[in-house]
Formats: sequence, structure tokens, C-alpha cells
Amino acid sequence: MHKINLDLKENSYSILIEENIIENAGKHLKSLKLGKKIFILTDKNVSPLYLNKLMDSLDDYEVKPIIMEAGEHLKSFVNLTKICNFILSEKPDRNTTLIALGGGVIGDLTGFCASVILRGINFVQIPTTLLSQVDSSVGGKTAINTNAGKNLIGSFYQPKIVLIDPNALQKLPEREFLCGYAEAVKYGLINNREFFDYLCKNEKKIKNKDVETLKYIIKTSCESKAAIVEADEKEKSGTRALLNLGHTFAHSFEKETGYSDVLKHGEAVAIGMVMALKFSIELGHCDKKDLELVLEHFKNMGLPTDLSHLNLPANLTKTEIEGNAQVLLSHMCGDKKNENDQIVFILMNAIGESFLSRNTKKDDVLKFLEQNLV
Amino acid sequence: MHKINLDLKENSYSILIEENIIENAGKHLKSLKLGKKIFILTDKNVSPLYLNKLMDSLDDYEVKPIIMEAGEHLKSFVNLTKICNFILSEKPDRNTTLIALGGGVIGDLTGFCASVILRGINFVQIPTTLLSQVDSSVGGKTAINTNAGKNLIGSFYQPKIVLIDPNALQKLPEREFLCGYAEAVKYGLINNREFFDYLCKNEKKIKNKDVETLKYIIKTSCESKAAIVEADEKEKSGTRALLNLGHTFAHSFEKETGYSDVLKHGEAVAIGMVMALKFSIELGHCDKKDLELVLEHFKNMGLPTDLSHLNLPANLTKTEIEGNAQVLLSHMCGDKKNENDQIVFILMNAIGESFLSRNTKKDDVLKFLEQNLV
Repeated sequence: MHKINLDLKENSYSILIEENIIENAGKHLKSLKLGKKIFILTDKNVSPLYLNKLMDSLDDYEVKPIIMEAGEHLKSFVNLTKICNFILSEKPDRNTTLIALGGGVIGDLTGFCASVILRGINFVQIPTTLLSQVDSSVGGKTAINTNAGKNLIGSFYQPKIVLIDPNALQKLPEREFLCGYAEAVKYGLINNREFFDYLCKNEKKIKNKDVETLKYIIKTSCESKAAIVEADEKEKSGTRALLNLGHTFAHSFEKETGYSDVLKHGEAVAIGMVMALKFSIELGHCDKKDLELVLEHFKNMGLPTDLSHLNLPANLTKTEIEGNAQVLLSHMCGDKKNENDQIVFILMNAIGESFLSRNTKKDDVLKFLEQNLV
Repeated sequence: MHKINLDLKENSYSILIEENIIENAGKHLKSLKLGKKIFILTDKNVSPLYLNKLMDSLDDYEVKPIIMEAGEHLKSFVNLTKICNFILSEKPDRNTTLIALGGGVIGDLTGFCASVILRGINFVQIPTTLLSQVDSSVGGKTAINTNAGKNLIGSFYQPKIVLIDPNALQKLPEREFLCGYAEAVKYGLINNREFFDYLCKNEKKIKNKDVETLKYIIKTSCESKAAIVEADEKEKSGTRALLNLGHTFAHSFEKETGYSDVLKHGEAVAIGMVMALKFSIELGHCDKKDLELVLEHFKNMGLPTDLSHLNLPANLTKTEIEGNAQVLLSHMCGDKKNENDQIVFILMNAIGESFLSRNTKKDDVLKFLEQNLV
């Protein structure tokens, strides 16, 4: 078993990575001294695979499952209200626990509910997708979406423990796997060139879902994220913002495609990272060779690298391209990282050397978007 | 000017108490380096009195007021959603500020909105009622109500500064003044016998709203609350729970009267404190003399001391009384302080010597309620 400790003073917790950990969850929760009542939030895709196993391991508790539809639309004020009202009707106390069993959507929504019920009840993450295992389950960002954009309402709220079963990835649809993989590559691009090289060297093993390789990828990703979160839990110094590499572009693409299955978050991030790299080259920060390496690895792995996912019609006029670029730019203007009307970007000096840039001009972004929309 | 510093590490802030501070708010906000965008949340009762003055003092900023209806029903999921969506539509960033201008309802709702928009934007409290000045504006508890009860959804989220204008109390309806006064007396009952004696000695001055006396009461109350919050910001050790003296009873009465004007929060707290004192005597913790002192002071000041506010019909049968007591007890069972199905009460050994009791038997509460319902 891999164990990673996230040191956040009174909010510290452990990330445990072990095959079949879901059916042993009860054992790992014991030391946390949780209250009797546990609610498990999961979705219709995940519950047939793991809910019974998880509930069997929790027979010392009073467990109630809440099974939701699947999809990004779950993260809404309406569902927040529904779930909170349901749990309150069951008379929870502050020792009551909410377990998120599923991917990033379930984790984000469950964590936000846990953070506001009685001003905070226990929260446990059991991520079952690669994306949630390497990224969203660690670090305590919770959120819902609104018409104005993705993750614009939420809280910083740390789980009591994160239980990661790498075997869950064997059952994951290929597209979901790749979405998570994009976030794993991200850690290499941010500050770990060695990890990026490891990934490039192990493309076959990763595609074949070799368990030891996957465990190493999850472990390295969680360690990278843990170090960044420890340095800047609430995204105040700028360090944590590095985790948003590719995300400023990604969120604007996702907004444009209505957070739909046309473009999944991980795909948007993959394209967004390529865009951030291209933009960094455009601004003179980074060498073209790094882009070639990233493009080659993404293509070998099957990750998207351009905006063909946006389903823009072919042969756009100049005016149409400018209009589309304006729309994407306006989406970026609502980004949480922004300060005083300036768009904050994560740019790259090289693979493994990302940095936060506060003084990007809107005109430069617009010009760049126009050039890269087709 | 009185200045009280609340030391909560990176969440530390000051409470400033000064006559006419509202019209000088801009001056006091300057050192906080807030972003350009400020939203002021207030209600229809408060806005005619102070909104223009406040806005005039903020002409260095882009200020938008949001004027709500008045009343406890404001604290709802529906209004949370509405306000968050409105502010998000104005493209805030993390330096954007939300000012609560009003009483406890406005403060609780505004603080909760501020805590979840972009996972936390700046929050400033300008309390205009005695209740919010001595209690709810200090300490960072934010909340909304649900069908299951009062303040069951919320967050711990500290303001950047609290600006208190004691002159605002001159314009406060008498009933509102008394509601706040009940929370001020509470600090005397919790751990400050000297303050309770001061209040008893100064009944006339308080009734006449002598400004120096009021300032002293606000200052002492804020200092008391600050010390308790510093010791236990997130209500984990039990120290902060002392601030809930009288509130377990109060919340059940309020729930029973539908959080309506039949029984206001401060009135419920006044009755709740008398009940906590009587219950403490019943359980052998406290001397009857203390009850007499409290009853005398409450009566002199015009605070309610019994359940006549609940509008129970006269001549209830034994079965009806038992039924009513059961209902009140069931309301208490949803209290946030409860742990593992035990009702947690704040009880008193004497005036100024309150303590947290975790092992109160439900049967004792029931018997006590039955005896005190008529």
C-alpha cells in the first residue's frame, strides 16, 4: 500500500492507494472515529460496480446511499439543495460522514454538501476514475457549476481520508481514462520533467493498464498535488494556481460546449495545456521543441490536441473567427484566478517549468485565439 | 473609537466601534486593499437609513447595492442561489467584496454567499442592530435556514473587518433592541458575573439608550465573544458552544413558531436562557437565587421569561402537554451541537459560570419541558 500524508495542520489527512481498498474501506475508516451515520453519494454508473462492496465493509455503521444520475450537470444549486435537505431530514450530527464514491463530479458535489451541512460534517473521498484519483479527490476543492461558469460556487474543504483503488481503472471507459490521464501528465508539465519522461517511455504499459505503472502514476500525481496544496491550501500565494495549467483555456472551451459530452473536462484540459504551451511559445517563453514532445505523446496516447472537438463549422469567415475568439475570451474573464480585470494564465518556460503570469494582455489572448481557432 | 482585534492567524480582523462609522466606512476599508468591485447586501428597512451614506463613502469603488425584503425567511437556499447568480453575472474576482449592511439575517446570508462565491471573496460586516453588533457579526458563523431547522446550512467564514455604529441603535425599534440585549446579557451569564451586575445596575441608562453605556455593552460583548472564538473558532473543543447558552431551547421554540414574528430570535434566547437556568436548578447544578436575579432583570428590561409567546391554548390536557413537549424535544434532536444521539446543553452552575453538558438524558428534558410548558 502507498500512503501519502497531506500536512495541513488540523486539516491533515492521508491518501491510501491499494488494490481493492473499497471492500476494505471500513477497516481504514475505523481510526477516524466517525459517528454512526454515514451517507454514500454515488451515481448510477458507479453504484452497480462498488456500492454493495463498500456497504458490506461498513456494517458497523448506519449507512444510507444516495444514488444520483451521472454527469457534470449534477453539480448544481438544485442538487445541492436536494441533497442537503435530504441529509438534514435524517437528523445528522457533526460526526456524521458523507462519502463520495465516484468520479470528480460526485467528489466535488459531495464535498461541497459536506462543507455546508451543519457548517461542516465528515467527508471521505473514494475516487473511482483516474481523473479523481490523480487530481480532484486530493486538495479539498469542492464546487458546483452555475450559468456563469464551472466551479464558480464552492469551498475549500478537506476530506478526512482518501481511499484510492487502482483496480477501479480496469473498469473505466477508455475516454474517461484518457481524461484522467491528461491531469496526470499535467504534473509532469508543471514541475516534474522526470515524470513527463517516464510517461513518454511507458506509453504501452499505460495503454495496457499495467497495475504497477498505474499505481506509480497515481502515487506521483498525488504526491505532486499534495506538495503544492501544502504550500498554498487556499490558492493565495499563486503556487496552487499552477495546478490550473491549461485550465483557463479548458474552462472557456467547456463553457462554450455547455459542459457536455462533446468535450469532457480532461479533454478540454489536454487541449488547454497544448494551447498554454503554444501561447507560451508565442510570447517567447518556451521553445518549440517542447511542444513537439507534448504533441507526440498526446497523439500516441490518444489525447486531443486541437479545437476540432468544439465542432466549429469549416470555412469560417474572418468576422466569425473574431466573434468566436471574443466569446472564448469573455468566458475567460470570469475565471476565479483573475485579479482586477487582468486574466491570470499559467504559462511554461519549458516542460516541467510552469509559472503564473498576472499581466497577460487581453489583446494578445484574442490574437492568439483567432490564430488557433482553425 | 474602540478597536478589538480578533486573533485567528491568517483570518484575523478588527472590530471598530465608533459613532457614525458608516459614513466613514471607506476610510476604514482602505487599508484592506480590496478590489474595485463592492456589492452591498441590505434590506428594505435598513437601506433608507444608511445605504446612501455608505455608498457616498465608497466612491473610490464600483458599488452595486442588492436590496432584499426584510425577515428571517431571507436566509434560504432560494436567495443564496439568486444572490450568487447575480454576483457571478457581474464577473467578480477574488478581490471583490460583499458588505453586509443590516442585522443578523443580512449578515448570516451575506457571509454565506461571500464564503462560497469563487470559494471565498472578501466579506465586511456593518451590523445595524444590537443583536448583530453584540453577537452575529463577530465570529464568522454564516448560515441559511431550511425546513429542518435554523442555521443548519452554512460555513465558518470570517469577515475582513466589522464596523459598528452604536448610533444606529437610536433608530432601532424597541423590540429589536431587546432582542439584541438578550444576547448581550448572555455574555454576563456565560462567564462574566461582573458584566451581569453592571447591566443590572444600569437598567435605566440602557433603557434610555445612553450612548456611552451602549458602547460599553457592545465593547464588552464583542470582547467576550472574541475571546471565546479565538479559543475555539470552529466549535470543536466545546468552548465556543458556550455561546449557545439558551439556544437549544430557543431554536426549538423558534422552529415551533415557524421562525415568525410571533417569537423573535432574541426573545426565544431570553426565554431559552431562563429555561436553561431552571433546568440547571432542576438538575441540582445551580441555586434558585440566581434565577430570581435573572428574572428580575429580564422583567425590568421588558424581556420575555416564559412560554406565553408560544400562544399555547390555556387548559391543555396532560396528553396535549406531553405531545407539545415531545414536539419541542424532537426539534432539539436536530441541534448542530448534538453528538451520537445525545442532546448537548449549555447549563449553569451560577450566573457567570456556564458549562457544556454532553450527557443530558432525553427523559429529563422531556419531564422538564412538560413541567414548564404551562
